[in-house]
Amino acid sequence: MNGAESLVRTLVAGGVDVCFTNPGTSEMHFVAALDRVEGMRCVLGLFEGVVTGAADGYYRMKGAPASTLLHLGPGLANGLANLHNAKKANSGIVNIVGQHATYHIGYNAPLTSDIEGLARPMSGWVRTSPDAQSVAADGAAAIAAAKAAQIATLILPADTAWNEADGIAQVPVNSQRANYSAQSVDHAAKVLRNGGASTLLLMTGSALTEHGLALAAQIAGKTGCKVMGQTYNPRMARGRGRFSIDRIPYVIEQALPILKDFRNIVLVEANDPVAFFAYPNKPSMLKPQGCEVHRMTSGAENSVAALEALAGALHAQPSDRQPQKLVELAKPTGALTHASIAQAIAMAIPENAIVVDESITTGRGFFPPTAAAAPHDWLQNMGGSIGFSTPVATGAAVACPDRKVICMVGDGSAMYTLQSLWTQAREGLNVVTIVFANKIYQILRGEFDGVGAGQPGQRAQDMLKIDRPDLDFVALAKGMGVPGRAVANADDFNKALAEAVAEPGPRLIEVQM
Amino acid sequence: MNGAESLVRTLVAGGVDVCFTNPGTSEMHFVAALDRVEGMRCVLGLFEGVVTGAADGYYRMKGAPASTLLHLGPGLANGLANLHNAKKANSGIVNIVGQHATYHIGYNAPLTSDIEGLARPMSGWVRTSPDAQSVAADGAAAIAAAKAAQIATLILPADTAWNEADGIAQVPVNSQRANYSAQSVDHAAKVLRNGGASTLLLMTGSALTEHGLALAAQIAGKTGCKVMGQTYNPRMARGRGRFSIDRIPYVIEQALPILKDFRNIVLVEANDPVAFFAYPNKPSMLKPQGCEVHRMTSGAENSVAALEALAGALHAQPSDRQPQKLVELAKPTGALTHASIAQAIAMAIPENAIVVDESITTGRGFFPPTAAAAPHDWLQNMGGSIGFSTPVATGAAVACPDRKVICMVGDGSAMYTLQSLWTQAREGLNVVTIVFANKIYQILRGEFDGVGAGQPGQRAQDMLKIDRPDLDFVALAKGMGVPGRAVANADDFNKALAEAVAEPGPRLIEVQM
Repeated sequence: MNGAESLVRTLVAGGVDVCFTNPGTSEMHFVAALDRVEGMRCVLGLFEGVVTGAADGYYRMKGAPASTLLHLGPGLANGLANLHNAKKANSGIVNIVGQHATYHIGYNAPLTSDIEGLARPMSGWVRTSPDAQSVAADGAAAIAAAKAAQIATLILPADTAWNEADGIAQVPVNSQRANYSAQSVDHAAKVLRNGGASTLLLMTGSALTEHGLALAAQIAGKTGCKVMGQTYNPRMARGRGRFSIDRIPYVIEQALPILKDFRNIVLVEANDPVAFFAYPNKPSMLKPQGCEVHRMTSGAENSVAALEALAGALHAQPSDRQPQKLVELAKPTGALTHASIAQAIAMAIPENAIVVDESITTGRGFFPPTAAAAPHDWLQNMGGSIGFSTPVATGAAVACPDRKVICMVGDGSAMYTLQSLWTQAREGLNVVTIVFANKIYQILRGEFDGVGAGQPGQRAQDMLKIDRPDLDFVALAKGMGVPGRAVANADDFNKALAEAVAEPGPRLIEVQM
Repeated sequence: MNGAESLVRTLVAGGVDVCFTNPGTSEMHFVAALDRVEGMRCVLGLFEGVVTGAADGYYRMKGAPASTLLHLGPGLANGLANLHNAKKANSGIVNIVGQHATYHIGYNAPLTSDIEGLARPMSGWVRTSPDAQSVAADGAAAIAAAKAAQIATLILPADTAWNEADGIAQVPVNSQRANYSAQSVDHAAKVLRNGGASTLLLMTGSALTEHGLALAAQIAGKTGCKVMGQTYNPRMARGRGRFSIDRIPYVIEQALPILKDFRNIVLVEANDPVAFFAYPNKPSMLKPQGCEVHRMTSGAENSVAALEALAGALHAQPSDRQPQKLVELAKPTGALTHASIAQAIAMAIPENAIVVDESITTGRGFFPPTAAAAPHDWLQNMGGSIGFSTPVATGAAVACPDRKVICMVGDGSAMYTLQSLWTQAREGLNVVTIVFANKIYQILRGEFDGVGAGQPGQRAQDMLKIDRPDLDFVALAKGMGVPGRAVANADDFNKALAEAVAEPGPRLIEVQM
C-alpha cells in the first residue's frame, strides 16, 4: 500500500472514521484510498472554513476527533479561523494538509508557501511527514495528540502519499484525561466552606455535563456559593431538570457589578475572567480588587470527578440542591422582539437537541427562557471568530444523526461560512438554521461606543450596516439546496420552527427583524 | 488626533485612498476616523477573502496599492489565501490588521492569537505599531513597502488607535521600479541574435503591456525567436491589434513537447518554467535537458525599458513585426461546448474590458479566439488558491469604474468567495460574472489520473463532484442583490452576455454545462 492508504487505514484503525474534506491535486491519493479502505466517512465541504468548523462540532459532540483534508497552505489558511475557534474550545482534530512533493517544494511553484508557519499559531502539534514509511506512524501520533484535545496538523507531501509504505501504525495508548489534584480539591473545599455567598464557582469545559452541573447545584445548596459559567462555553447541558446557571455577561458594564462582591473565585477549567476586548479606562480583568482566585481543575483534568470529590469533602448531597424558578414559557404572538424570539425558540427546542449559538446581540436574553426548554446541549464560540456556527452545526449533526441541531446565527456571521448549507443538504443533516436578519453588525454598533469612538456618522455607519442591498437568506439557501422560509412575526416564526423541527433534513428560517 | 486618525490621514496623503474592509471592535477607531477625514473610499466586504482579493485586483489595474482593514488574527487568516495569490502576483497592499490593546494581549482573551506569525508567510513586510505616536510613521513605511509591490502587514493594537498621536507622516520618496541591467540586456541580445527559432523569450509581469508585447513582436520578427507568456500572468494586454502570444500549457504532457526544442530561454520577469504540481515519474522543471536559461529582468525591474533596449541592440523595428493570423469570430449557435463558449465570450468582450480568468478547465481553449476580441486586459491567478476571481474582479471594478469587468469562474471556485457579489451590488460595480457550472472540480478529475491514482471509484468521485444538490447560482446571486440568468445553449448565452455587458451594475450568468 502507498503512504496515503497507510494513513487512511491508520486513521480508521485508530477510531478516526470521519474526514471533513476539501481536497486538491496533492490529496488525490488520499481520496483514491477511500475506494480501497472500508469504514471512513468522507464529507465534502465547498470551503475549508466549513471543513475545520465541522471537525470542531464533531469533536464537541462525539468527544473524539475527526480528520480534515485540506489543500496546501492556502487551503489550510481558509480553515484557520475555525481552527482558532476549535483550539480555544480544546477540541481535538487530526488536521491533514497536503503539500507539494518533497523534491518539488524548492522550485517555488505557485501554490508553494510556508505551511508549518501557517499551521503553528492555530495548532498544538505540527509535523511534516518526511517519507511514505513515516506517514502511518506520524498519523498515529497525530491521532494521539488530537485525542489529547489538540489541533494536530499533519502535513503530507505528495510523494509521501504515492510512494510505497510499510503498513498501518497503532495509536499509542489513549492518553486519558488526567485525574485532578486532590490538594486543589481540598483547597477549594476550604474556600467554599468558609466563603458562603461571597464565593463564585466558575465552571466551563468538561464540568458542564448534566452530572457536573448537578454536583455544582449540591455544592451551592450546601455552601451558599454562587455557580456561574464563562461567557462562552464549548458545551453546556441545559433545559428542564438540569441545574441552570448564568454566564458572566459579555458587556463589561454588566459583568463588573455582577462580580463586584465576590471575595473568592474557584475555577473549574475556567479562565480567570477577562474582558473579551480592552476598552479605554475599563479594566481587562473582571474580578474585583482583592478577590482571590483558586484553580481547582484545568482543561486537561477530569472536572466531574473533581466535583464529585469536592461534593464529598463538603458533605453535599442531592438533597442540598435548591429548587430553581424557571421562566414560564408560552408561544409568543405579535411582533418579533428579542423577547418573543427567545420564547419561540425555547418552546420549539426538541428533546435532546443540540443548540449552536452564534446569535450574538439578538441572543443576549436567550438563556433564561431556554433554561425551561426541553433538555438540550448548548454550544458556543470559544475563539470569537465569526462564521463558527453553521460549520459547527454541520459537524455536530454528522456526529449525532439522531439529534436535531438548532443553529442560531446573526446575518453578519452567517455570511462567512454559509457554504455549510450545501454540505447539510448533501448529507441530509438534521439542522435548522435560524438567521437573525437585523441587517447590521449590531455588536459593532455597541462596541463603537464602548471603545470611546462616540456616535458613528454616515460613513462609519456604512461599514456597520449590511443592508443596501438586503440579503435574501431564503434565496441563498435555495441556491444550496436547503428549503427556507422568511418570517416577520411571532406566529409565523412559531409555525416555521415547528415545521422545520418536525421535518428531516436541513431547513433555514430567516427571521426578519 | 488619535492614532487611527493619524493613520487614515497618512494613507490619504500617501495616495492610498481606497480601503477594503471587514472591521471588528479593535478597528472601530479607524472606522470612526472615516467620518472626520475626507478622501478615503471605504468598501465593505462580508468576508475577508473578498477584501484581500479586491485589494489585489485594485493594485493590478491601478498600479498603486489600496489598504485593507481586518479584524485580529482570525480576520487576517480568512484573508490569507487571497494575500497568497496577491503576493505571487507581486501586488502591493497596505494590509492593516487590528490587534488587542497592547496591555490586553497577555490575558489570552478568546480572539488572541499570534498575528505576526500568521502574517509572515503571506507578507513581505510585517510590523506591529508599539504606540499611537508610531502609527503614522509605521503607516508611511507600510505604504512605501506596498508601493514597492509587497504585501505590507501593519498590525495596530487598539490602544495605539485610540491614544493621542502626533500627526501624519510623509511616505518616503516612492521607490520607483528599478531600472534593468544593461549587461543582462546585452547578454540577451547575444543569445537572441544567435539563437533563432531555438530561443524562447518568456515574459510575464510588467512586460505584458501593449507596448511591451509590441516590442517583443519586433524582436521575434527580427530574430525568429518564439515569444510566450507564463501559464499564469498577473495582467496581459490582449485583443485585436495587440501582439498575441501563447502561454505554456498547464498540462505537463502538453507543456513538455512545446518546450522540447528550445536551446535557450530568455526570462523577462518570468520564472524558470516549473510544473504547477509534481507528478510521479514526470519532471518538475519543464525545460529540456541542455537548455540554457538567461534572466534579462526580474519582477522588481523595468521590463518594458529593457525590451526597448533589447530591440535597439537587435535593431528590431516596428516593421519587423510579422502579421498574425487570428481566429475568425462568429456568434455560436446550438449546444454549449468549450469551443462555443469561447466564441461567445470573444464576441461579447467589450472594448477596454478587464477579463478576470478563473475558468480553469472550461477556459483552457479561451486564448486563441479571445486574441481576436476587442482590446482588453486579461488577469490570472498567480498563487493557485481558488476563490481568486470574484474578489479580484470586485477590486478591478473599483479601480476602473469606466471599464467593464468580465469575471469567468468555475462553479467550484465561485463558491469560495461568492460574497463578492454583495459588494458588487452595494457599490454598483460593472462586473459580469460568468459561472461555468459543470458540477465537478473537473481539474481534479484530470489530476487524479495525473498523479497516478487511476480511475476514481464511487467514493472518490463523490469528493470531486459538486452535484447532489446542484448549486443554483441565479438564486445565490439574487440572495446578494445581483440579477442573474441561467443559460443552457449558445443562443441564450449570446443574448445574456449582450444584455449583461450593456447594462450598468453587476450581473451573473450561470452557464449550465
